[in-house]
Amino acid sequence: MKKYNFTAGPCILAPEVMKATSDACIEFDGMGLSLMEISHRSKNFQAVMDEAQALVKELLNLPEDYEVLFVGGGASTQFCYIPYNLLEKKAAYLNTGVWATKAQKEAKLFGEVVEVASSADDNFTYVPKDYTIPADADYFHITTNNTIYGTELHHDINSPVPLVADMSSDIFSRVFDPTKYAVIYGGAQKNLSIAGVTFVIIRKDMLGKVSRQIPTMIDYRTHVKKGSMFNTPPVLPIFTALQTLRWMKKEGGVAEMERRAKERADLLYGEIDRNPLFRGTVKCKEDRSYMNICFVMAEGYENLQDEFFEFATARGMHGIKGHRDVGGFRASCYNAMPIEGVKALVETMQEFEKLHK
Amino acid sequence: MKKYNFTAGPCILAPEVMKATSDACIEFDGMGLSLMEISHRSKNFQAVMDEAQALVKELLNLPEDYEVLFVGGGASTQFCYIPYNLLEKKAAYLNTGVWATKAQKEAKLFGEVVEVASSADDNFTYVPKDYTIPADADYFHITTNNTIYGTELHHDINSPVPLVADMSSDIFSRVFDPTKYAVIYGGAQKNLSIAGVTFVIIRKDMLGKVSRQIPTMIDYRTHVKKGSMFNTPPVLPIFTALQTLRWMKKEGGVAEMERRAKERADLLYGEIDRNPLFRGTVKCKEDRSYMNICFVMAEGYENLQDEFFEFATARGMHGIKGHRDVGGFRASCYNAMPIEGVKALVETMQEFEKLHK
Repeated sequence: MKKYNFTAGPCILAPEVMKATSDACIEFDGMGLSLMEISHRSKNFQAVMDEAQALVKELLNLPEDYEVLFVGGGASTQFCYIPYNLLEKKAAYLNTGVWATKAQKEAKLFGEVVEVASSADDNFTYVPKDYTIPADADYFHITTNNTIYGTELHHDINSPVPLVADMSSDIFSRVFDPTKYAVIYGGAQKNLSIAGVTFVIIRKDMLGKVSRQIPTMIDYRTHVKKGSMFNTPPVLPIFTALQTLRWMKKEGGVAEMERRAKERADLLYGEIDRNPLFRGTVKCKEDRSYMNICFVMAEGYENLQDEFFEFATARGMHGIKGHRDVGGFRASCYNAMPIEGVKALVETMQEFEKLHK
Repeated sequence: MKKYNFTAGPCILAPEVMKATSDACIEFDGMGLSLMEISHRSKNFQAVMDEAQALVKELLNLPEDYEVLFVGGGASTQFCYIPYNLLEKKAAYLNTGVWATKAQKEAKLFGEVVEVASSADDNFTYVPKDYTIPADADYFHITTNNTIYGTELHHDINSPVPLVADMSSDIFSRVFDPTKYAVIYGGAQKNLSIAGVTFVIIRKDMLGKVSRQIPTMIDYRTHVKKGSMFNTPPVLPIFTALQTLRWMKKEGGVAEMERRAKERADLLYGEIDRNPLFRGTVKCKEDRSYMNICFVMAEGYENLQDEFFEFATARGMHGIKGHRDVGGFRASCYNAMPIEGVKALVETMQEFEKLHK
């Protein structure tokens, strides 16, 4: 049976990306050695790092004054590295979920934090719209996609202060204007690579802005200066990132990834809205995520939840259980999810409807 | 031609470890999915994490009150996390090389640092022996193996204060008494796994010892509490670590790794000392590393350096160029290096001798 992987992350990657990684574990670049055992200082790996950084710049249309870093530690580590490097007095945060809350919490150790708005009062079922960003903040932090709740910011914000975005779960799925952002970061394990590498995209004028002393590995300047090779970087996860970047370019770039994301989301949200057994959990439809599509059993059908989970799992739908904070189901549809996977899920929902309506 | 990989790190791993990783990139644990695309919260990966932690404890004979963490960022990141978590007033450091110097530098941001001894005056060609560890230090930090200079501490130190050891490049190669150490850490990309995961072994009484506020991801308590799963860990590098741990156990454990390390080192140092074309760089023979065996052309033969490098490389010896701070050659002989590799290198040295003597 064909399995479709709807896991929220680490998650589906293109089959050719997984194949290339598997092959490189045996033999890399004609070296007679495995990717797993080569020096990160070898010219063969330097070429991987260089091309991966160049392709991030190319696919995102980054201007010359942006640097691309590949580091370890995950986005959670960046929650404290961001204020360590950027917060001198005050920072502004938009609270759209658990991850945004965690990011904000770390900033409080480094200065004053203003929460400009929050949707916590309604379990983060929408993205706040009306708020004022303090003009004297060192930066304004947003989380562009909220994996747990299935909300997403589908446009670029005009911020009067440097905009810092955690794009862990929707980078490379939407064409955006990079000049609106001062820093973009995220764990790679959604649309870019496997778990174990973190990307940080930083406009150079954001470096060296604070007066505090910063430990070497926390200081972004260290990694900019050494091209992410100050210490041994996560070699294999960066190789996998390169394979994904090449795949995205070959498939048509970010614009094509966005077209596919919309196509998948339209199909699945369409079924959720049509099928009387289900309902979407995001209250504001314009905030519905294209990456994480959350739904629950509709009123009167709540008792069928476990049955639908088993029904769908038996048909090859993997990882559709919703996060415990929301319940129900979550079908994560990252870049590598083929439309056939969403069609299969929709058919499964329709078959289940016929059984119970 | 058979290649022998003498690279200093990332480095050689057992062929079956590389094969198992390659296979898991296609199909993991009978899930019908790749290791690269599964959730770290799946029971299948939880089993990997649990077994890897248990095997570290078993192979190192760790008492009950030690925790094993797998995190990201490399040993260089731990250089600042160690003092962040442990340094209240004063720390003592033994300076045995570039990495020890870097570790010490980070500690200075957090308190008073006493360098108890240093071999910098002689380009780190020996490990200082006579020094006094201040009894009022919060901890004493050592680097057990110095990859660049090829020196190693072959015995456990009796420290009057908690002993913290960077064992990046010799963990699992020597049977040691874990009760002598309060914290042991290192990048995994030598004797444990690929680049992208860092191990931290910490005695529980070392947690929560300082008064400063520690950011969540820097605080060891976070990772202890959540079993290294507070955030998404480096899934694939941890899987590879598990394969190496299983391989070590099957081969006879750390005692057998130590026997092999001595056998390799005796053979290669024996040839270095016998062959008139070469000489070892470590001045104090008892400090010679079993992991990184450094040598240069002997007096009168200096002009043959490039020729020997090409001669050896053409015979399948990969990665034997010495670090720029030492020059000459470095044959790194980590756990997975078969004795045949060292024999091949010795034969190469002997053939070269015949050509030039």
